[in-house]
This record gives sequence, structure tokens and C-alpha cells, in this order.
Amino acid sequence: MIRVGYPSVLADELVRAELLGPLEGSIELVPLDWQRTTPAEVEVWIPDPDPVKGAALWPQLRGVRLVITMTAGTEWLPELVGPEVPICNARGAHDIPTAEWVVTALLALLKFFPYYYGQQQQGRWPPRSEAARLYGELSGDHRLFFPPPQLEELHERRVLLIGYGSIGQQIERLLTPFAPRLTRVARSARSEPKVHAVSELNQLLPEAEAVILILPLTPESHHLFSRRQFELLPHGAILVNAARGPVVDTDALVAALHTGRLRAALDVTDPEPLPEGHPLWKCPNLLIAPHVAGTTVHSGARALRLAAGEIDRYLRHLPHHNLVRADL
Amino acid sequence: MIRVGYPSVLADELVRAELLGPLEGSIELVPLDWQRTTPAEVEVWIPDPDPVKGAALWPQLRGVRLVITMTAGTEWLPELVGPEVPICNARGAHDIPTAEWVVTALLALLKFFPYYYGQQQQGRWPPRSEAARLYGELSGDHRLFFPPPQLEELHERRVLLIGYGSIGQQIERLLTPFAPRLTRVARSARSEPKVHAVSELNQLLPEAEAVILILPLTPESHHLFSRRQFELLPHGAILVNAARGPVVDTDALVAALHTGRLRAALDVTDPEPLPEGHPLWKCPNLLIAPHVAGTTVHSGARALRLAAGEIDRYLRHLPHHNLVRADL
Repeated sequence: MIRVGYPSVLADELVRAELLGPLEGSIELVPLDWQRTTPAEVEVWIPDPDPVKGAALWPQLRGVRLVITMTAGTEWLPELVGPEVPICNARGAHDIPTAEWVVTALLALLKFFPYYYGQQQQGRWPPRSEAARLYGELSGDHRLFFPPPQLEELHERRVLLIGYGSIGQQIERLLTPFAPRLTRVARSARSEPKVHAVSELNQLLPEAEAVILILPLTPESHHLFSRRQFELLPHGAILVNAARGPVVDTDALVAALHTGRLRAALDVTDPEPLPEGHPLWKCPNLLIAPHVAGTTVHSGARALRLAAGEIDRYLRHLPHHNLVRADL
Repeated sequence: MIRVGYPSVLADELVRAELLGPLEGSIELVPLDWQRTTPAEVEVWIPDPDPVKGAALWPQLRGVRLVITMTAGTEWLPELVGPEVPICNARGAHDIPTAEWVVTALLALLKFFPYYYGQQQQGRWPPRSEAARLYGELSGDHRLFFPPPQLEELHERRVLLIGYGSIGQQIERLLTPFAPRLTRVARSARSEPKVHAVSELNQLLPEAEAVILILPLTPESHHLFSRRQFELLPHGAILVNAARGPVVDTDALVAALHTGRLRAALDVTDPEPLPEGHPLWKCPNLLIAPHVAGTTVHSGARALRLAAGEIDRYLRHLPHHNLVRADL
């Protein structure tokens, strides 16, 4: 019987169905309030998905021998818990919702949903001729948007998918019937399917009509997108960031958006949460979601199901499935 | 050499590339201003996609023996041109963009884009706990939305696809990797794949988490969705109408939206355009696009390419591909 600590905010029925159910008799569940001020002894720790809350709780924990996150990202944990404690992540639990959000965001920008929603809020049915006139006034370049004369298609657009882990692969599956011209990029080049090395990024950007960021945050991917990369993108390109905020240099992104040459959708920002009055809030051609893409009414249950599997393997001294390594 | 009339608003290079190019030497192109007040002799007429403009021009036309539309819908034409003039539509030209828009709209509602865009416009990063609290206050039912604690997934949602022509089939192709539980409905039942008859609609509605309308407007489909149908839908259901406005009873839709039990996205409305001050503008949980889904920078070229094919078959006395019949 081992003690498993989990965030006390999780619904009882969820924890009982997904964790206790499959492990009944082998584990004791210990709900942990992140603000607790007294020590707690747990052998397995499932931290709050919010790193601030997880880090606040850590000093109270005793005897932790395994950490299992409910998120894909674990960048805040190794330094906190030290090199002796293995960390498993929820690789897979958020693939479906995150990939769905990425496709939603890309399509919403191609279909000018923010523009049309703005018209709707004003109670206006914009005649196409007016939209075309405004569009022409704004720019001689037919790729400048807001307001658009016509929607764009994902069909045959050139999309650069940067990051080809489990979420990147799910994004590709969802995109396939839309028939974009997809180019895959990851840390190192591979074949079958063809994946470019991220070192080739600058050569690939001038052809990219849309860029999807879904790679892990590492020292190498920090500020992967900065001023130079934005300059290399064609006029009217779309950037979707569902990776981590610091993969993009925020100052360079703000500047690029204000040129009117770029559209973007962000589920993650740097800093995060984005404070009141931050310049990103006022950028044109931008959709911001407050880091909610991967979390749905179904993903929590999926993450706990994965955690139960890791605990089972821990108990039976079997190798973990989702052990976090530096090259993830 | 036959004379082909087309809307003078179309870009010259487009018309030359897609119409004159493949038919050089067989046709003479006649640009038609919809406000012209003098007669014009054309054997083939490609009307303006806007029925108001097309109908305004018709009294000036002489000698029309074939009408080819740039749209899928042709409901305004048979009465105008009479039973002697065959009508071909642009079946196929708008499949890709319309299907893309339907999937975008469905996903945008599942991912609560209007809510998050509203938060963004106020410069607010809503903490999940606050969203959950507000959500709980609004309703004890976890399916009531705005603001949402968590996004929803298209994965495994029960989707009712009403209309299974070429656009409906393209929607199914795009939806497939999202793995919804799809139920198809059309005018008459078929098998392989299983398609339900629209007469079974009321039995299917209580299970439908999302309904997509993409069927033609006919006397039978007029007000297909009225008060009874909205009542049969489960709490939180989504309606996407990319068919024609009058397929839905607007008064019943307004009432259903105000109950907070329904979300909807409309590319078409009744009346259309939606006038200033119409009650639909102020409905909650609604996205309105001003009948733009099917028109993209690529679809005009596709429609003219189809028209060129029909003109070629007309010249060679071959059967038309997209002849409009009552059962389309």
C-alpha cells in the first residue's frame, strides 16, 4: 500500500474512477491542498497542473519517489525535485484537445472569425463590396487582411509543423483531409516521413503560409522565433503557438504583428499569465487563449488514466511509459 | 462563336484564364453590368452570385439558352428564367471552402472562441477557477456554457449531418480524423454508407450534440428546424447552418438561443442580409458570418472552370454535368 498525493481540487468521482478504481488495494489516496503548511508523506506525487501551486506545495512533501504530471510540459520540475526523482508526464492525454485547438485556431484565422465576430458585435452585415474596398485601402497587397474581401482556404496552404512528437503527429492526422502542403520540422532530421531539422528553419520560413509551434521548451528552442524569423515569413503568414510562450520572443512578436504582415493565435505567452496592460493585448490580427487548449472535460480523466498505468508499473517494477528525458 | 455574358465585376485576368482560355475561338465574352438599362444578346448567361443583381439584369437579356451559376444554390432562378432554359449550378466549386467553414464554426464553438476573444478584448487572462465559478453560478448543468471552465472536444461528439450531397460528403471527410460519432441524414434513406431519411429527424435530435445543416432549400426543408426541433435537442447542443436561412425558423432560433440551451453558428440567415436591429444580432452563444463561407480567393476560379466545362459540353451537344434538377 503506497500513498499517492493528488491535487485536492480534482473531483472525487474522477479520482476514484480513474486512479483508485484500477489500483484498489494497492494505493491510498492523499488529497493535497497546495496551500497546506504541514508536511505530507507521499511516495507518488501528482502535482497541480499549475506550476506555481505545485512549487508552493513541494517544500511540505516528504518521501516522494515518483512524480507524475497531468500535463505534457514538465520544464519546472527537474530543478525543483532534483535528479534522483523520476518524472513521468501525461504524454498523450492532451494530444487530442491540443491538436483540435491548433486546427481550430488556424482555421479561425483563415476564415477571419475575429473580423466577422467584430462586425456581428456591431450588428453589421458587411457587404462584400465594402469589405473589398476597405481591404484595398488598407494595402495594395491582396494578402493583407482585416477586413478581408474573401475567406482563405486551408486546402493547399503551405503549413510548417514545428515539433513532431505525439501532439504534432495528431495535428498532422487532423490536417490531412484538408490537404495542406505540410512540411515537418523537429529537433533532428528524419526520413519516412520526411522531417527537417530545426537547423534548416530559416531556409523553410519564406515558403510558409502558416507555422505551427508544438515543440518542447528547451535551451535550444528558447526564442526560436525572434525578429529574424518573423522577417523571413511571407506577407500574411499565420503563426500558431501551442508549445510554450518563451519559444517566441514576445517583443519581436509584438513588433511583427504591428507591421500588419502577420496573423497569430497563442495558447501560451511569455510572460504567463499575461498581465493587465501588456502590449500583446492590443496587437492586431491576434487571438489569445489563456493556456486552455489542452484541458477539456475529457483530458483530466485521460491524464489520471495514464497516471494509474505509471503507478501500476512502479508497483510492479516495470519500465515507465512516459518517463521524461531531456530529448523528449 | 457564341456570346457568353458574365458579371462585369469579375476580374479580367480571372475570366480570361478560366473561361476564354479553354474556349478560345468558340466564345465571345460579354461583360454585363447588373445595372445596365439596354438589352444584351447572350446565349449563355453566368449571373452575378447576388440574386438581387441577377434578377435586376434579367429583363435586359435576350436569347438566353443556358444559365450557369457560380453558386450551388439556384432557388431564385427557375421562376425567373422559366421552364425552357436549362440551369447548371457550380456544384463542387464551393465544397471545399464551405466544408472548411462548417468545421471551423463547429470547432470554434466547442473551443469557446467567442468567450475567449471577448476576454482578450478586455485585456483579461481569466483564471480557470474564476471561469469555473462563473460557470457554476450560471447553471447547475455542466453543459451550460459561456464562460466555460474547460473546452470541449469534437472527438467522440455525436454529430448529426443533415444533407449528404457533395458538400455534406466533404464535411464528413474533414471530420473523419476528429472521430466524431456521425449520423447522416438526407431527403431519403440510403445504405452504404447508412443515411437516415429526414422524416426520422425528430427521433435523432435528442442524441445530437451538434447538428450541421447543409441541405438544399426546398418546400420540404423550409423551416425544417422550428420550435419543436430545438426543444428536442439536448442542453448545450450546437447548430451550424451553412445551407439556406429559411431552413431554420428564425423566431424559434432566437427563442432557443435566449434559453441558453443552444449554441449556433450561421453563415445564412432569414432574412438575408440581416437588417440592422434584427433580434438575431443580440442573441447569446451565436456566431454570424454574412454568407461568406463558400467564397474564397480560390472558389471563383473553380466556379468559372466548371462553367467552361458546361459551355464546352453545350457546344458539343453533350449532357451537362451540373444540370439542376428538383431533387438535387
